[in-house]
Amino acid sequence: MLYKITEKIFEMEQAGHRIVKLNIGEPDWPTAPECVEAAIKAIKEGKTKYASVQGQKELRERLAQLHEATSENVVITPGSKYGINYVMKTLLKKGDEVILFSPHWTAFELIAKEYGAIPKGISLSFNDNWKLDFEKIEKTITKKTKLIIFNNPCNPTSHIWPMEEENRLIDLAKKKGVYILLDCAYRGIAFTKIPAHPAYQEHVIITDSFSKTFGMTGWRLGYVVANEKIVKELVRLGQISVTNVPVFIQEAGIAALDNYEKLAEKTRLISKKRADACIKVLRGNVEFTTPGAGFYLFPKLGMDGEKVFEEMLAKHKIALVPGKAFGNYKEFARLSLTYPESILEDACKKLVETIEKLR
Amino acid sequence: MLYKITEKIFEMEQAGHRIVKLNIGEPDWPTAPECVEAAIKAIKEGKTKYASVQGQKELRERLAQLHEATSENVVITPGSKYGINYVMKTLLKKGDEVILFSPHWTAFELIAKEYGAIPKGISLSFNDNWKLDFEKIEKTITKKTKLIIFNNPCNPTSHIWPMEEENRLIDLAKKKGVYILLDCAYRGIAFTKIPAHPAYQEHVIITDSFSKTFGMTGWRLGYVVANEKIVKELVRLGQISVTNVPVFIQEAGIAALDNYEKLAEKTRLISKKRADACIKVLRGNVEFTTPGAGFYLFPKLGMDGEKVFEEMLAKHKIALVPGKAFGNYKEFARLSLTYPESILEDACKKLVETIEKLR
Repeated sequence: MLYKITEKIFEMEQAGHRIVKLNIGEPDWPTAPECVEAAIKAIKEGKTKYASVQGQKELRERLAQLHEATSENVVITPGSKYGINYVMKTLLKKGDEVILFSPHWTAFELIAKEYGAIPKGISLSFNDNWKLDFEKIEKTITKKTKLIIFNNPCNPTSHIWPMEEENRLIDLAKKKGVYILLDCAYRGIAFTKIPAHPAYQEHVIITDSFSKTFGMTGWRLGYVVANEKIVKELVRLGQISVTNVPVFIQEAGIAALDNYEKLAEKTRLISKKRADACIKVLRGNVEFTTPGAGFYLFPKLGMDGEKVFEEMLAKHKIALVPGKAFGNYKEFARLSLTYPESILEDACKKLVETIEKLR
Repeated sequence: MLYKITEKIFEMEQAGHRIVKLNIGEPDWPTAPECVEAAIKAIKEGKTKYASVQGQKELRERLAQLHEATSENVVITPGSKYGINYVMKTLLKKGDEVILFSPHWTAFELIAKEYGAIPKGISLSFNDNWKLDFEKIEKTITKKTKLIIFNNPCNPTSHIWPMEEENRLIDLAKKKGVYILLDCAYRGIAFTKIPAHPAYQEHVIITDSFSKTFGMTGWRLGYVVANEKIVKELVRLGQISVTNVPVFIQEAGIAALDNYEKLAEKTRLISKKRADACIKVLRGNVEFTTPGAGFYLFPKLGMDGEKVFEEMLAKHKIALVPGKAFGNYKEFARLSLTYPESILEDACKKLVETIEKLR
């Protein structure tokens, strides 16, 4: 549903409609000039040739250092989603189970199903502030469980689970002999400080993206940190699909890391201001969890999110994503906070109006 | 084997060895300035955002026109290999058969096997000048045959089959109700004029690459032309893997098409001169088929190609690919003609010496 909406909105735009795209988690500011300049320099230097499938050693070494791993544990991928896809292809066979925490990013579920695996979404509750229930998690792990996916901060809620809960989950996975994938796409831009780069461990797979923190969505640059067995398989799969990520794009990634703190802080500040602006409009009108990181709000609408989506798109040319796209959360919707405050405030007002009208 | 060698050579280079890489089909000249400029312009204009999974409409329309299709038949892919991979994922299930013409590009076989399909290589003969035997082909097609792959001009031989043979094969596939994939990666740079862009038909899948004709190997840009059912599935798979090819790379592709004739002619002339230089050294010493297109020579060494590969790499730091990588062609080796003539002449001399020494 998420991707059908994305493609539909792109088509509407190409047909000349102006849409406020709160459906897509994409910064509206340009890629940081440091990254742009590094890419252009590399293109001009002719870094446009075939290259290592695993990725440029310099970039891999830099990332390895952040995650307390070696460069042999790192694979550069065209976006983190591609990496997550091939990690699942590597680990899962038909009938295997993957534990997700719902609401969850649509791609986790779609990819697991693509390989015939069964996504087991553990439904977390808005009223409980999305708290993890370890007893329930332990019961959900069976002999068929091959992978736990943990996306902290969470897309779509922007909720942050405290480090104690995350570490407890990592330990539980280890105890049960199950891999855990930490998707860190929103970690660098958390409003409250959490370690941006979790430490690599043998049973921990880390995926991260340059898209959100550095405004590099369309560049398609991400990475996987994993044990050498998984890395070897990712390289083999890369050899028969995309080959390498363009070297000049990897150079932009190195420039992003060179300026990490500055760029992440900028994204964090912009996102925080936007979240606050939306909160001001929504508070008292719609229920929501206060976001712990940038990019998303996941309000509880008190009615069918799909109806609200349709009305908002038809009447106001504002695109949301119905909660259904993220699991059994029909009454919710995801808003991407990727426009200036004035537009977001207006969109939130229209959301409140729409809900009142449809009630 | 092909990709293990590629990765090994990259590693040797990163460790400081200087290798003459006749193992990889990559132009040694820079990407055409028209493409470089278009990409840089697009980056500066901020065309660095998420975009359509299917690809930019302008590029798709241009390609559709070349292949007598509509833009709805075209998907832009990060390299043609990725496209070929996902076409096979779409069409094949376990136990299905794929017909290849051997010697064949390694990736066809590896990808088919990846999806549990059985590659049925029809061995063509050097002594017969790689002629297609239609009786044999017809016999090889069974109820399990889902796909015929035809790579004209051929990697690794650079042989060109005449259009009558290609059309006969396309008609045979239609008669048998089997898809045929035309991999056109070397078609734009054929020495003898053949139609660079075959016409799309319902049962014909066309894949092509910007890598060879325009010196764009490391950019990862290719495309698939296919019926809407296949396109829809490729888009679905893209949504859960790479998302989009960077728009600025697609803009470089549009610039390449704007300058098609000029750039293809340049590649053709350089490649022809190099092939001629090699032929001069090899003639009378080693048997080979005269190449009909750029990039590869596939000499018959009269001995184990792997031994020749090892000796050439160890002694002369020249990398080839043993014929075994392309099917049951142990006595052959593939040389990529992607260096200036003087280096190629020297490499060919060393090849002749090595053969004489090992004989």
